[in-house]
Amino acid sequence: MSEVSYKPVLVEPRALADLFLMVQADVRWAATEDAQDVSVTHIAPLDLACENAFAFLSNPKFREQLLRCRARVIALTATDFEWLQSQNIDATRSTFAICAQPYALFAMVAQRLYSPAAPEETSIHASAVIAPTAQIGQNVSIGAQVTVDEYAQIGDNVTLAAGVVVGRHVKIGANSHIYPNVTLYHDCEIGARCIIHAGAVIGSDGFGFAPTPQGWYKIPQVGRVLIGNHVEIGSNSTIDRGALTDTVIYDGVKIDNLVHIAHNCVVGRHTAIAGCAGVAGSTEIGESCMIGGGAMLGGHLKIADKTIVSGGTAIISDIKIAGQYTGIYPASTHREWERNAPLMRHLADLRKRIRSLQKNADDSSATQ
Amino acid sequence: MSEVSYKPVLVEPRALADLFLMVQADVRWAATEDAQDVSVTHIAPLDLACENAFAFLSNPKFREQLLRCRARVIALTATDFEWLQSQNIDATRSTFAICAQPYALFAMVAQRLYSPAAPEETSIHASAVIAPTAQIGQNVSIGAQVTVDEYAQIGDNVTLAAGVVVGRHVKIGANSHIYPNVTLYHDCEIGARCIIHAGAVIGSDGFGFAPTPQGWYKIPQVGRVLIGNHVEIGSNSTIDRGALTDTVIYDGVKIDNLVHIAHNCVVGRHTAIAGCAGVAGSTEIGESCMIGGGAMLGGHLKIADKTIVSGGTAIISDIKIAGQYTGIYPASTHREWERNAPLMRHLADLRKRIRSLQKNADDSSATQ
Amino acid sequence: MSEVSYKPVLVEPRALADLFLMVQADVRWAATEDAQDVSVTHIAPLDLACENAFAFLSNPKFREQLLRCRARVIALTATDFEWLQSQNIDATRSTFAICAQPYALFAMVAQRLYSPAAPEETSIHASAVIAPTAQIGQNVSIGAQVTVDEYAQIGDNVTLAAGVVVGRHVKIGANSHIYPNVTLYHDCEIGARCIIHAGAVIGSDGFGFAPTPQGWYKIPQVGRVLIGNHVEIGSNSTIDRGALTDTVIYDGVKIDNLVHIAHNCVVGRHTAIAGCAGVAGSTEIGESCMIGGGAMLGGHLKIADKTIVSGGTAIISDIKIAGQYTGIYPASTHREWERNAPLMRHLADLRKRIRSLQKNADDSSATQ
Repeated sequence: MSEVSYKPVLVEPRALADLFLMVQADVRWAATEDAQDVSVTHIAPLDLACENAFAFLSNPKFREQLLRCRARVIALTATDFEWLQSQNIDATRSTFAICAQPYALFAMVAQRLYSPAAPEETSIHASAVIAPTAQIGQNVSIGAQVTVDEYAQIGDNVTLAAGVVVGRHVKIGANSHIYPNVTLYHDCEIGARCIIHAGAVIGSDGFGFAPTPQGWYKIPQVGRVLIGNHVEIGSNSTIDRGALTDTVIYDGVKIDNLVHIAHNCVVGRHTAIAGCAGVAGSTEIGESCMIGGGAMLGGHLKIADKTIVSGGTAIISDIKIAGQYTGIYPASTHREWERNAPLMRHLADLRKRIRSLQKNADDSSATQ
Repeated sequence: MSEVSYKPVLVEPRALADLFLMVQADVRWAATEDAQDVSVTHIAPLDLACENAFAFLSNPKFREQLLRCRARVIALTATDFEWLQSQNIDATRSTFAICAQPYALFAMVAQRLYSPAAPEETSIHASAVIAPTAQIGQNVSIGAQVTVDEYAQIGDNVTLAAGVVVGRHVKIGANSHIYPNVTLYHDCEIGARCIIHAGAVIGSDGFGFAPTPQGWYKIPQVGRVLIGNHVEIGSNSTIDRGALTDTVIYDGVKIDNLVHIAHNCVVGRHTAIAGCAGVAGSTEIGESCMIGGGAMLGGHLKIADKTIVSGGTAIISDIKIAGQYTGIYPASTHREWERNAPLMRHLADLRKRIRSLQKNADDSSATQ
Repeated sequence: MSEVSYKPVLVEPRALADLFLMVQADVRWAATEDAQDVSVTHIAPLDLACENAFAFLSNPKFREQLLRCRARVIALTATDFEWLQSQNIDATRSTFAICAQPYALFAMVAQRLYSPAAPEETSIHASAVIAPTAQIGQNVSIGAQVTVDEYAQIGDNVTLAAGVVVGRHVKIGANSHIYPNVTLYHDCEIGARCIIHAGAVIGSDGFGFAPTPQGWYKIPQVGRVLIGNHVEIGSNSTIDRGALTDTVIYDGVKIDNLVHIAHNCVVGRHTAIAGCAGVAGSTEIGESCMIGGGAMLGGHLKIADKTIVSGGTAIISDIKIAGQYTGIYPASTHREWERNAPLMRHLADLRKRIRSLQKNADDSSATQ
């Protein structure tokens, strides 16, 4: 591979004034020159930033990096800026954007800096197979080897990358971007400004079978998957269609890679679910929750708004009160684990013995 | 997205008499009219069912829903039907199908109701690439962008959806349905009436490497994956080919999404494996087992028939006796967890202290 | 499916002398005939090996199988060979290859035996879509329905199987093999002699969002994924591109199926990661580590070289000292678990009660 070293992705120089106008952030400037004249060509981490970079400090733990940082523009809080001024160093080489939420400001500027120019005309690759009844919006980009089935509706400015398969009657809202080899099953709906990463599968059958003496009997899965606006879904994640009713992912939800959402789940607005997590059937996750990586949520649960489930944690009953919930066996050396873990099966016995000792002690002191 | 509300998937009205004739279920009728005249157009949950719906009650917990249910036909047990009669309400608007297993009856009726009409003729999309030596059965449907390699054998009535890749010498039994973007590696065999969901990978190399001073040395994986009849495999699941012998999935097995089955595993008849579970190499799972979501089974294990492994549970030794096995750290608030979890590393010490206290108490009482 | 029985994959007979010359292993021969005359046609497990098979014994536990083994050649250690000689049986039907590491020898021989003959000329399927600016090396094989985007560089002897999507500016080193339906996002680099299995996704966006009052704000992910030489990645695994800097997988790393590596992770040389494991963002795993199946590593951690993380174990803090680390709740019957698991939430209380008892006992003995 290339030598491992920081290689910033450069774009055409963009005037800071324009970028900030777009993000409408509440920013105070500290600069030795007119901020109007400043322009940047890329984003960079504080410790590697060089000329023309836009960087940020949000965690005061890394304050020391300010002392050596050579970024053209640094977003930071007023507190961190005051600390820097107290250090008596020459900080005139950078322009400082002082704001309440440097990380959010950074995100907004970075998005504008790297937003691709919209393609100027509809581009549908000759190898794509588009059913005659499919409706294709304005300015849609369809890559090679794509398949769009009957009656699909593709909104304006949508991108379907190479190898995407769009089923019958699927609807995709405007400005959504579907990465390569994604499969969207029939009847599912994707909102506007969504991003679905490569290999994700939306709308496969839920895992529904009735037990019979002759084995499992499949329940037809006739619900859909409905996905709101501004949702992002990671690569190779899977969201199953509902059995009778729909599986619903509300606006602003962010789902990482290799996440499984089973049939009839509901995920509330602005909830984020990290990689390798799994949610069993019919569970309803509230709004603004954060589900950690590898967490497993059982079926038919209700999870309160603003709940945080730590990584690796299994949840098997409702969560009614917001807060952080954790349940992982803390790792130790294997030797230590071998000594302690078997006792997990004897905790009830240990408690019994303690009770018995206490009773004896109490009796003994009572008779003294 | 569309407004989130129940939107039943309707089919042409189907006469109940015909449907029940097909499923040959042992059903007693309670109806105010001749059941011969009843027809249904869809399935629906009890609480949302309306005119012409077929619904069921299998969990007595939801009995109350019967009181308001407007489904055309309701499958339920004799006990629940008696309860309903005792409620003194007008239940004449529905026809009742009284049977021992309402959920199984529902599954059977639903399957017949929604079984797609078989396409009338072979349909192979012009963009599909079929090797000249591949054998394609009668009435096969091959979608756009499909690849079928040399010597593959595709049985009658098989569907290969868009983007499927079928390797050399792969065999697929009659009536199987392979969803988009599935990859079947060379030499693997899929039985009849199987369903493989989008993005699943069958037959990738097992994870077999010999350690050497120069690093890992790959062991060629020359076994196959053999999959029986009536098996369903979820989206983006992976089943690795055997190293020397084969990985075998027997008849009637159901595997959910994002499940990993490693090389040389054997999964017995009618076993079900829920989403995000993983099975390490050479493990043999018996018949009619249920492996919960996110469960992890170690390598080279034998799991008895009819074993139930709870979700999120790690199994690291053989299970010789059927039953339910569980091993998850119960989640609590993070604060509570922080207080208790570190003590996991001191259980052996706690037991030692209890023993010492008991010894003292015993000594003390002996000397009194 | 085919009757389940051992069906060896045969190749043209290959002379043992040639094979061993290639692997340059330090082997002593014990044979009743000239080893020059021996040839083999396949590899096989000890217990199923028959005429013309090459087999090995590396675990003395299976020594007994030597007594009945009919393989043409058996690789084993001197100790095991001496044991066999002590058994007074006729072992003349096999040739014995006595060496220090029979498994490694087996791997090397097997690789040579099964290495496919290189295709003799460039083969690019007519349905593949190759951008005009892409650079294609010598002797490259490109399958059906493949897409190669602008400025991609494909090294000599590379195979891109059916349905692979190669993004802009991607580089793939010589002799690498990319299996069907893999997606390589723009700018990523794959080294030489790599194997990437079906459905894997390299370079999807990292899960990076800034929280704002209006919801999650996406951080553009402008780093790359850099993958070294001789790396193998399992089916449907995902490796995210870096946010600002790169995600780096060093030479010789082996990654199993359904593994998730988040943005900005670094995986050191010769580390192996088993199926269903997940690694959160910015974590650096050292060299020659072994991460077990389903293990979850938190973000921003540093894991020492040669660390072994057991399957199913969650790691949430740095590991500074090599060794094996474990943290799984040992499974028991569900009934036993129900009795013991709730006490996990009362460990701190149990310790308190033990302390109190000890204090009383100490006070009591002090006053006697």
